[in-house]
Amino acid sequence: MQRYKKDLDYSYALGTELTLEALKKRPSDVLNVYVHSKQNDNKIYQEIDYLAKTNNIEIIKSDKAFNIVNAKENCYIMASIKKFSNPIEANKNHVVLVNPSNMGNLGSIIRTMLGFGIYDLAIITPAVDLYDPKVIRATMRAFFLLRFNFYNSFEDYLKENPGRNIYPFMLDGKEKLQNVKKQELYSLVFGNEATGLDSSFQQYNSVYIEQLDTIDSFNLNNAVSIACYEFTKDKLKL
Amino acid sequence: MQRYKKDLDYSYALGTELTLEALKKRPSDVLNVYVHSKQNDNKIYQEIDYLAKTNNIEIIKSDKAFNIVNAKENCYIMASIKKFSNPIEANKNHVVLVNPSNMGNLGSIIRTMLGFGIYDLAIITPAVDLYDPKVIRATMRAFFLLRFNFYNSFEDYLKENPGRNIYPFMLDGKEKLQNVKKQELYSLVFGNEATGLDSSFQQYNSVYIEQLDTIDSFNLNNAVSIACYEFTKDKLKL
Repeated sequence: MQRYKKDLDYSYALGTELTLEALKKRPSDVLNVYVHSKQNDNKIYQEIDYLAKTNNIEIIKSDKAFNIVNAKENCYIMASIKKFSNPIEANKNHVVLVNPSNMGNLGSIIRTMLGFGIYDLAIITPAVDLYDPKVIRATMRAFFLLRFNFYNSFEDYLKENPGRNIYPFMLDGKEKLQNVKKQELYSLVFGNEATGLDSSFQQYNSVYIEQLDTIDSFNLNNAVSIACYEFTKDKLKL
Repeated sequence: MQRYKKDLDYSYALGTELTLEALKKRPSDVLNVYVHSKQNDNKIYQEIDYLAKTNNIEIIKSDKAFNIVNAKENCYIMASIKKFSNPIEANKNHVVLVNPSNMGNLGSIIRTMLGFGIYDLAIITPAVDLYDPKVIRATMRAFFLLRFNFYNSFEDYLKENPGRNIYPFMLDGKEKLQNVKKQELYSLVFGNEATGLDSSFQQYNSVYIEQLDTIDSFNLNNAVSIACYEFTKDKLKL
């Protein structure tokens, strides 16, 4: 094993909760489970131990492994996981992020969109590394339910996902979020943290979140959250 | 000058934008402006230079200062600023954060609430340090407009701010956010990132943001954003 790098074909789920979730949701993608000598023989550990053995996954007792991945102080269990793919579905609503650059933002966006029942994320590259352990950690357990694709351009995304209602979020969008007619199947599209979306996106149903000029714009993560809330409100299938 | 610590009576505004904003909004609280040798003599620098001189603030040319505060690579201008106070107003709507523990979250919450025209933040301690340069930076320029108070308990907050409509956000809140009757003057109350609010807050108009069980809860920052959006929607005084 080695420290995480973008070109590795595996990543790490750090911590008890994430490891358990990986074993439950994607057992065939879990390579190894690592356990630190400080881990207690508690109930959640026993569940992890049981699931690993059931799936023929080796449990490696090693303190050094946690140093290698630079795990946080209280992280005593982790799993190495294959960089699996789980493609988006054309007949579902999507979030599309154009060149997202912040790992914490990306993880938190994934957590929130899954909370609102939007499981499908299209990422237009270049973008921050979705598989980075920091992103996975920030999604909490949502990562293992996410469907995701990468595209080189928004045009490539449209080609593979035709006939959708495209709602780009722009500071100079045409319609206010609460007033916009929300038609399925939709794609909620957001630009890079610093630069937003370019004006070519005005050809679609561009949307703005009304704000005062006390700030330049909302944080990307917050803008996506508000958008997902408003688009899914009263439609969640609980 | 020295590296930032919680018990200093000043903090730092890191970067050109924040320094400019500090000089514009709170010139009497700016102690010094620091300029790195790599800073160009551009328009924004000239504005900072002009405002500093107008307000008799010393401009110190020092590369070492940027090492001391551990500034990011592209940060070539910064200001040391007094830890000013700017008390909340009783006749305005408030956000109340009970024991917030994450700096990035806090900064981003401030940015978003200001964007929605909620200028008043009550923080129930213990809490992350509002004056930490990382928090200030994450607020973007919103920090210098914020009104804020610290309280040792929610009871202390209520004592000083009586007769308000209290909306605690809880996973097991009584009313769904979109359905709740939103009455001014309101206090939107949120618990700590990990532990939320305790059940004693059920005595007020507790609110929940509907979500699927794909996640445990929304990120605090996102929950506050969604709440502020829904409470201020169509009421912003632009």
